[in-house]
Amino acid sequence: MGFTDVIKEVRETSPLVHCITNNVVINFTANGLIALGASPVMASAKEEASQMVQHAKALLLNIGTLAAADVEAMILAGKEANRLGIPVIFDPVGVGATAYRTETARRILAEVNVTVIRGNAGEIAVLGGTSAQVKGVDGNKEGISHNQVQQIADDLQAVVIATGEVDILSDGKRTFSVANGHHMLTKITGSGCLLGAVVAACAGASENVLEACIGALTFYGIASEKAAERAIAPGSFQAAFLDQLYLLQDEAGVLEQVNQLA
Amino acid sequence: MGFTDVIKEVRETSPLVHCITNNVVINFTANGLIALGASPVMASAKEEASQMVQHAKALLLNIGTLAAADVEAMILAGKEANRLGIPVIFDPVGVGATAYRTETARRILAEVNVTVIRGNAGEIAVLGGTSAQVKGVDGNKEGISHNQVQQIADDLQAVVIATGEVDILSDGKRTFSVANGHHMLTKITGSGCLLGAVVAACAGASENVLEACIGALTFYGIASEKAAERAIAPGSFQAAFLDQLYLLQDEAGVLEQVNQLA
Amino acid sequence: MGFTDVIKEVRETSPLVHCITNNVVINFTANGLIALGASPVMASAKEEASQMVQHAKALLLNIGTLAAADVEAMILAGKEANRLGIPVIFDPVGVGATAYRTETARRILAEVNVTVIRGNAGEIAVLGGTSAQVKGVDGNKEGISHNQVQQIADDLQAVVIATGEVDILSDGKRTFSVANGHHMLTKITGSGCLLGAVVAACAGASENVLEACIGALTFYGIASEKAAERAIAPGSFQAAFLDQLYLLQDEAGVLEQVNQLA
Repeated sequence: MGFTDVIKEVRETSPLVHCITNNVVINFTANGLIALGASPVMASAKEEASQMVQHAKALLLNIGTLAAADVEAMILAGKEANRLGIPVIFDPVGVGATAYRTETARRILAEVNVTVIRGNAGEIAVLGGTSAQVKGVDGNKEGISHNQVQQIADDLQAVVIATGEVDILSDGKRTFSVANGHHMLTKITGSGCLLGAVVAACAGASENVLEACIGALTFYGIASEKAAERAIAPGSFQAAFLDQLYLLQDEAGVLEQVNQLA
Repeated sequence: MGFTDVIKEVRETSPLVHCITNNVVINFTANGLIALGASPVMASAKEEASQMVQHAKALLLNIGTLAAADVEAMILAGKEANRLGIPVIFDPVGVGATAYRTETARRILAEVNVTVIRGNAGEIAVLGGTSAQVKGVDGNKEGISHNQVQQIADDLQAVVIATGEVDILSDGKRTFSVANGHHMLTKITGSGCLLGAVVAACAGASENVLEACIGALTFYGIASEKAAERAIAPGSFQAAFLDQLYLLQDEAGVLEQVNQLA
Repeated sequence: MGFTDVIKEVRETSPLVHCITNNVVINFTANGLIALGASPVMASAKEEASQMVQHAKALLLNIGTLAAADVEAMILAGKEANRLGIPVIFDPVGVGATAYRTETARRILAEVNVTVIRGNAGEIAVLGGTSAQVKGVDGNKEGISHNQVQQIADDLQAVVIATGEVDILSDGKRTFSVANGHHMLTKITGSGCLLGAVVAACAGASENVLEACIGALTFYGIASEKAAERAIAPGSFQAAFLDQLYLLQDEAGVLEQVNQLA
């Protein structure tokens, strides 16, 4: 259930991941995917977004810097991915912060069958129509409980990943937590967005989406822990983290912190 | 009058800085703001730019890679920032290089009350309708005098920062120079643009805009000096500089080179 | 015929290179050009793209993340570069992957006289109407022969550079291979795109385009070899490579692997 098989599969098959993502993280996302062993392509023109999907093993839709033209391309590409049966990973960055972002996220969910949704606890709560402010006893620090995540996954018929100090993910039936990761990830931009892309690569290379997500989360978290041993601050951490995405193997000293919650 | 109080305030309150900036530096700007301790958000769609300002403590408008849609978003966001009373920092990148850039800069200044303008000497001179080629005895190497900067600040009713080997800034009444900084800043892209964002973070976290600007300039300059001690060339300097934005404290050996000129 | 004179000329004259390029690599391209000693400007609005060319010594057109507005700007800027007699470097990223990309590349070639085309073997083959899958005995690993490259250069009346493990370039009469380079270049995004920009800087600073291209390729390849000695993985390599673009001189231990093939 760990990362070994999933990451091995990515490195052996180098899946093409079509990313329609935001301008802040587009370079970091491409570099992260290459370091991991996957192949990125970024094509967000509506004239070609759909056709480019035909070469891909997975599609990432990230609304971090929304523009009307991108939304149209996202929906065209998403529908084509659905037709082809390849996984669609949706990252609803900032949903809830503006009406436009919330409406766009809902529109994408209405028109495209997404396979995986990755967001922080607040974003996932907004999508689920619940509140992240309600911090139950079993909620993570960000204020979403594993029961909420499981319910939202069931409602949206997707694997839902709520990332935070402890990540919670669920396919609506089974629910897991992944406690790997390092706080330095919160000191660089795009660490959540790149995680979405890594999830896409893993889902594109695997048979089992939930296992691919768990593999992606544990690998990503451990890579950040290893990188933090080699970096003192965010600038050097960013380079060290890309290095670890390239270098990290299943080796002595790698401690996966995965727990099944339900 | 130095950076200690200003930067401490940024780190304690983590102000959200809404950046409508250029595609070249958007990632570096986000990473720089996070390293400093502020929170960046980039939202340039006209459908949401204005609403996103409502969450922010400061707004940055940077015309480095102009597009017509961005200009519309900048003006909508700027007007909303004015309504809310939060500072607007304007970076007129490349003004004077093309008619479109000059017209756009003038349009933004006409429609939005900007709090701070940050540019190099040539850009500031263009905005002021003077010439940066005239190098008076009191001009810095880039050819703008502190009298010119003070006059332009008075004319435009804003704090004006003309950066160069020595930075000059004025609110139209008081004028200062800041000599901190390292030439390696000129060997990476976006060092001026990120400075504009750091000024925005400081202005958003402070009561006194002029003091916030002086704090931002000295902190930024000293961070570059510290980074240059750890880097041999631009690639390693970029990472070292982000590290210093995160690490730098007011400590022994920090030498602030601020002088009041008028 | 090596890099010394060409790179020296770039560093002494610091040519302004106007880049209309893709959002994935725009920051890396700007940083690479500055590290090299050239001056980048990125202006892709149709309202100003043509006027900005008037300040430039070379123009780079890269279709990596196509958008309709950019194409219009590319053609306006290209025509102006032609009128001014400055070199136009065209990088047909992903041509052949979608109909839109292929049509756009052909349209640019029809409307603009390009001076240099840089692509990988597959992209160059698509432009030439041949196939990169046909691997003749004299083909490089990517499957294009030096005869094909020479023929395409003659047909398109441009210097054509087909990059790969061994680069092949031709002006239609003379054909060369450059074997410098390190596989770590394939582990970061934008290494081909930045090469196009470095070619533009060299062509903009030189009298002889073919020699400028050979100089750019050898310099770039050797810089990657030197960087790989200092880096273990892609994240650290990226910084080390930018460092070498800044530091590399013609020195003991620099081995240029240039051969004339025809």
